[in-house]
Amino acid sequence: MELTPCFHGARVAESAERCGKKTIDELIDFSVNLNPLGPPGLRKKFLEAFRSITNYPDNRYLDFRKAAADSLGIFPDNIIPGNGSSELIRLFAETLIEPGDEVVIPHPTFGEYEFQCRLFGAEIKTVAYKDIVNLESDGIKAVFLCNPNNPTGQLLERKKVLDLAKKCMGSETFLFVDEAFIELSDPKESIADYAADNDLIFVLRSLTKTYSIPGIRIGFAVTSSDSAKIFNDVRLCWNLNSIAISIGIEALRNYPDYISRSLKLINKERSWLFLKLRGIRGFKPYPSDTNFILIDIGDFIMDPSELSHRMLDHGIIIRDCTSFSLRNHIRIAVRKHSENRKLIAAFLNVISDWGKERAEKEIGSALERGTAARSRINCEYYPCHFEGQDCTFCFCPFYPCEDERTGGEYIQRTTGGTVWSCAGCDVIHRGQIAEKVLKGLMKERKIKEIWNTEIEPILA
Amino acid sequence: MELTPCFHGARVAESAERCGKKTIDELIDFSVNLNPLGPPGLRKKFLEAFRSITNYPDNRYLDFRKAAADSLGIFPDNIIPGNGSSELIRLFAETLIEPGDEVVIPHPTFGEYEFQCRLFGAEIKTVAYKDIVNLESDGIKAVFLCNPNNPTGQLLERKKVLDLAKKCMGSETFLFVDEAFIELSDPKESIADYAADNDLIFVLRSLTKTYSIPGIRIGFAVTSSDSAKIFNDVRLCWNLNSIAISIGIEALRNYPDYISRSLKLINKERSWLFLKLRGIRGFKPYPSDTNFILIDIGDFIMDPSELSHRMLDHGIIIRDCTSFSLRNHIRIAVRKHSENRKLIAAFLNVISDWGKERAEKEIGSALERGTAARSRINCEYYPCHFEGQDCTFCFCPFYPCEDERTGGEYIQRTTGGTVWSCAGCDVIHRGQIAEKVLKGLMKERKIKEIWNTEIEPILA
Repeated sequence: MELTPCFHGARVAESAERCGKKTIDELIDFSVNLNPLGPPGLRKKFLEAFRSITNYPDNRYLDFRKAAADSLGIFPDNIIPGNGSSELIRLFAETLIEPGDEVVIPHPTFGEYEFQCRLFGAEIKTVAYKDIVNLESDGIKAVFLCNPNNPTGQLLERKKVLDLAKKCMGSETFLFVDEAFIELSDPKESIADYAADNDLIFVLRSLTKTYSIPGIRIGFAVTSSDSAKIFNDVRLCWNLNSIAISIGIEALRNYPDYISRSLKLINKERSWLFLKLRGIRGFKPYPSDTNFILIDIGDFIMDPSELSHRMLDHGIIIRDCTSFSLRNHIRIAVRKHSENRKLIAAFLNVISDWGKERAEKEIGSALERGTAARSRINCEYYPCHFEGQDCTFCFCPFYPCEDERTGGEYIQRTTGGTVWSCAGCDVIHRGQIAEKVLKGLMKERKIKEIWNTEIEPILA
Repeated sequence: MELTPCFHGARVAESAERCGKKTIDELIDFSVNLNPLGPPGLRKKFLEAFRSITNYPDNRYLDFRKAAADSLGIFPDNIIPGNGSSELIRLFAETLIEPGDEVVIPHPTFGEYEFQCRLFGAEIKTVAYKDIVNLESDGIKAVFLCNPNNPTGQLLERKKVLDLAKKCMGSETFLFVDEAFIELSDPKESIADYAADNDLIFVLRSLTKTYSIPGIRIGFAVTSSDSAKIFNDVRLCWNLNSIAISIGIEALRNYPDYISRSLKLINKERSWLFLKLRGIRGFKPYPSDTNFILIDIGDFIMDPSELSHRMLDHGIIIRDCTSFSLRNHIRIAVRKHSENRKLIAAFLNVISDWGKERAEKEIGSALERGTAARSRINCEYYPCHFEGQDCTFCFCPFYPCEDERTGGEYIQRTTGGTVWSCAGCDVIHRGQIAEKVLKGLMKERKIKEIWNTEIEPILA
């Protein structure tokens, strides 16, 4: 009962509340990794599906299982339909895990594996993601692998995953391969076909990301027909609603070139984003094989929490990766070009805002420290006017005032023409004057107005 | 892994396949207990919901929880949203049950309680439904109560349920009250308000039955806000899809007189059905407080399995209650009047078909036994024509043939007028002739044709 549920992104309504937006449409969500192409044209099927709400779904889900199997060249008996990935992860855990079982989970990765396994009493052994392929699986009940990995975006090639699978089979260890993003990465590296022949291998597929339909909740798992029979028995009756099934079948069957078009868009936009992100000082984006990019911002001017909050003020949601137990990392989705441009512009705006605020803050603290402290005694020109002068304004904000009452005058330039010279004026370097002018500027008063109230009286 | 999943009705697609129907629309499903009024007008909301498929649901489900809470006069913090009743039963079990825990389940009742508890290693203690109110709850981890009960339709009054609740609280026993049908029975007997103040009491509500939307998968549970917090943490993230949420909120909020209209229809139709069912020889319907009726058919001419199959041939699905571990019982839903009339007509047709088949079968076996065995020697008129006569046709199927070659003739009646007399004809009582005529009739040959081929030759 002490377990905290796994934290996910895609909290767009919460984000809208936090930044005072009335509708979620005012925000662009880069914290959620969906196909940037958006869903294929499912509206017609959706309307047809209304008729089905007055009937219980057929819990065998034969048509959906056939559509899923056909998409992978396997058999309907290999398919376990799931109400989203989360349900399939729980199904795996609740079916197999007994208290005390040792489960290996790489780091960093998707948080649900650990949460769901802990719920059923597993002991979690964490290994670095790069070491998972060299795992010694003896005595391990189950191993989780996210491929491509969330949040790093790294794809392991099929051969390496198969080596791991064979090792697991040798030690009677279950292997759970989460391929939620593989269709938006490189479907050829999938081992779903291999899972279909092996009782111990369980491959998860998601329609959510691939077809950009997170509101629908639909996915499936692949394993041997014997194992699938058991999981389908433990699976909740009617776990998918009729609408999800209609939409799922339609998506799987009727959009043959949708995946290839999606991959083309993702690859192009990911390259563009990667270059732009690398150009931001303090951002170290990880090379990604899929539709999101992890960024190390350890050297950036602010931490993920502050950056996320500031981005939200610009209407952009990014993923703070603290919830992946990753310090100083953020993750962003690859979206449409117009949105990606807005993301980069928002990052730059946040940096520029931060700079302005910081400058104002420094001026503010300078004000608090008093005139003497505002003399730049280390400046090579100090004192350009008088010892103890106030250097807040190194250059006068009224320049050229062209008012000879100040002591200023037009003089001949050595390069020809005339120039306004301030050599005879020290007004802006007088402590009290400098302070008043600065305060005026910080209140965003107009320069002419400040002249009239602060300078004019001492000249008159 | 040896557990068999709970069997449910509503297998309309499977039934259609079994009886060779092309679409499920050709069947009337009395095995599923939905509001006979059908769903309220949700179409508009459904169409609006299409927009939501490209966003993850907001996993807090604030609006739905508010709508559910408002419908019961409690608070959103008391609500746990569920992907149908099954998920909420599993959530309860997986959150609370540890291997070896003792769980009390009344008999007969809904099968999911036992299945879900066994999955997590519970020891099941079965008590007769009528004894549940007198339960000694010491040492028991959880008690399940379905109110009104499925499949009996019996409603326990609030006072009795509260007595049980208090007893459970005294022994720190969790009480799970499944009120899936209470709105189609008597909502005043609900203890949902009481559950909202008690950590150990968990009340299940279903929108499926009440609003006749089984394709949508939506329900909720009620408990104290402290308990609800825990269950909502264990609950799968995004367990309800966006469409379910839109439809659920709409149903709960915008149809104020829908429940009362439904109850009026159910009460009227249930009374009508009860009388008709009681009129069928061998049917003993149980008095029901809700929208379905359990029927003991122990004295009926066939068993539930045969009856179900025969009803299916008439396009009607009924529930064989063997899966409730109830021998010789069926359950039928209360539906619309036109459908209820079809149900009764189908029962009567099944009985009549059965009678015909049985008569044919007896004739068939009579044929096998030979002429001698077909003499009705115990008949008070035997032998009406000659010793050893064949009595298959006590009355001649050709009567009145009006053919005097047979020995028959018109005679004067004592009451006036004439009548054809067969006293001088024994043709139909000759063994070989009777057998030929009978075979002809069983092949559905026309009576005139049989006369021509079997009788005419011996007269000519």
